Amino acid sequence: MNTYSVKAYGTESKEADLKEMNIERREATPKDVEIEILFCGVCHSDLHTARNDWGGTKYPAVPGHEIVGRITKVGSEVSKFKVGDLAGVGCIVDSCGTCESCKQDLEQYCQTGFVGTYNGKDEHLGGHTFGGYSQKVVVDANHVLRIPENLDLAAVAPLLCAGITTWSPLRHWNVGPNSKVAVVGLGGLGHMAIKLAKGLGAEVTLFSRTPGKTEDAKKLGADHVVISTDNSQMDSVKGKFDLIIDTVPYDHDVNPYISTLNINGTHVLVGYLGDLENIINTVPMIMGRKSVAGSVIGGIAETQEMLDFCGEHNIVSEIEIIKMQEINEAYERMLKSDVRYRFVIDMQSL
Amino acid sequence: MNTYSVKAYGTESKEADLKEMNIERREATPKDVEIEILFCGVCHSDLHTARNDWGGTKYPAVPGHEIVGRITKVGSEVSKFKVGDLAGVGCIVDSCGTCESCKQDLEQYCQTGFVGTYNGKDEHLGGHTFGGYSQKVVVDANHVLRIPENLDLAAVAPLLCAGITTWSPLRHWNVGPNSKVAVVGLGGLGHMAIKLAKGLGAEVTLFSRTPGKTEDAKKLGADHVVISTDNSQMDSVKGKFDLIIDTVPYDHDVNPYISTLNINGTHVLVGYLGDLENIINTVPMIMGRKSVAGSVIGGIAETQEMLDFCGEHNIVSEIEIIKMQEINEAYERMLKSDVRYRFVIDMQSL
Ligand SMILES: [Zn+2]
Ligand SMILES: [Zn+2]
Ligand SMILES: [Zn+2]
Ligand SMILES: [Zn+2]
Repeated sequence: MNTYSVKAYGTESKEADLKEMNIERREATPKDVEIEILFCGVCHSDLHTARNDWGGTKYPAVPGHEIVGRITKVGSEVSKFKVGDLAGVGCIVDSCGTCESCKQDLEQYCQTGFVGTYNGKDEHLGGHTFGGYSQKVVVDANHVLRIPENLDLAAVAPLLCAGITTWSPLRHWNVGPNSKVAVVGLGGLGHMAIKLAKGLGAEVTLFSRTPGKTEDAKKLGADHVVISTDNSQMDSVKGKFDLIIDTVPYDHDVNPYISTLNINGTHVLVGYLGDLENIINTVPMIMGRKSVAGSVIGGIAETQEMLDFCGEHNIVSEIEIIKMQEINEAYERMLKSDVRYRFVIDMQSL
Repeated sequence: MNTYSVKAYGTESKEADLKEMNIERREATPKDVEIEILFCGVCHSDLHTARNDWGGTKYPAVPGHEIVGRITKVGSEVSKFKVGDLAGVGCIVDSCGTCESCKQDLEQYCQTGFVGTYNGKDEHLGGHTFGGYSQKVVVDANHVLRIPENLDLAAVAPLLCAGITTWSPLRHWNVGPNSKVAVVGLGGLGHMAIKLAKGLGAEVTLFSRTPGKTEDAKKLGADHVVISTDNSQMDSVKGKFDLIIDTVPYDHDVNPYISTLNINGTHVLVGYLGDLENIINTVPMIMGRKSVAGSVIGGIAETQEMLDFCGEHNIVSEIEIIKMQEINEAYERMLKSDVRYRFVIDMQSL
């Protein structure tokens, strides 16, 4: 298979900073499109993968799965796009297409495992996939999203991961105008959860550990802020919520939140992959038919639905644009939660 | 309010055996029916309440919430029953009727708390309610069930608690002919879960810790038995089940079962009220949109639906009939799981 070289930013080992490097992209096949990358959002997964925090990172690692750009080549079998169109790529660049999950447009739960945009198995070139911290990417057109023309393109990028990660549970658990939704944590995921739940018409509450975020949360659309460390505030929302989107990226006690669920309510974890070391008490779950669940990103059709919804409702992420060369500093700031609310790389800087 | 005395079996303290005693029943009000109790099933909750295992037991305690009998009086406003009809009473003898839960026929989740058949707050006489280990009971007719005439009456009794406790999650999570259901534990609840899931057309698997139960489980309707302590058997059902009904009455590790859930599957706890001391790993929950949930008994309308279904499908509990005077011995045998699968008291013995 013919390839060509593009500039990218990646790392050779878990200890090393990211730096400029060259990677190979395949020539677009009849099913592919080639995209010139204009902006790429910076997700916590990028950092965890670069530093091998979850194990399994293959090097060199080129992160980035919140990709927006413009189509530069279209394969002969592709009718969905033409050269010059805006396009987006999220976390999934391929999936089996034939398993029970894929047949239901749930590629995120593909039973043979979807191909990640980076650190996935590259079926075309061998080796592993490289992400959006690069000039161009070549992707199967069925896994490429259309981008609404009316939105700020840089601020669209985080919708491809942070947006769909919160949209999918909102839709799966049927959030609408009569729903009461709470969001735990106000970061990249949490701020999108507020905007999207509000966009769907729900009454939205932010749970925050500190009072300092109230003004920001309300600007983003939250109706209420509850300080989760204040028992009387927690008591005041007992039994209230239909759905809690928990974006906290580390182990924490979910019991206080379960108490704030309504009958049939669900506490859905989207931010923390690992052991919940805290004991879970079953009494409120059983006595209120409450659930603790998990959810990961979303399928391609659902991602398109979310982008179209954002186009109609003028919803984008709150971002801080950085140059590619500032990525290592950006990672350090992310570790200190010093970002409101997502870094996006202007790929022209590469 | 006028009352009259009936014979009952109860206990004066958590250490004391149950013995014969007299309790007061109210004269039936215009909304009530009076029932001569013919059979009463013996639930683990009876034992836990008698011995104050959960705290909060009021003495004298007269257990019993799997009641079947015949109507002996009908209040002037009651049109649903006539004298001589068969009737059943489960765990709920009253509820507010006006909260969001009650309005949705979810009296089991009544937001002011339903009135338990025993150890509940008696709104009519003051004090607390007395259960079905007695000659007669007087209950608001809206909380009394019709009993199909074609079933063995003694074997119907356990449907009022063990039956509805497993039926409600089967219905809530939409189990039908294409469902794959697993049941954890083969006791009073577990054997009903197998029969009801099978009745609904599901493919049913029993998880058992020991191989000895295979034959019994298959007689009850299970299609498969998986020994949960055998890793290769557990691996063979990875990702299989849409719903797992977990009837285990003590703390246990749910992680191995979560791995056997299909995408969107739910592990529902119905048997254990307390702390899950084992750590829960979120990875399979998030990567498969799986849930851990709880469920308690069922509403009145749903209980009637279950009884009607059992009438149509000839489903009853497997029982061992005992005399009232054998109750203390029966409790000891229950603690050793030495019952297949439910004791039912023949109340004529009182
Ligand atoms: Zn991401
Ligand atoms: Zn698939
Ligand atoms: Zn019971
Ligand atoms: Zn109520």
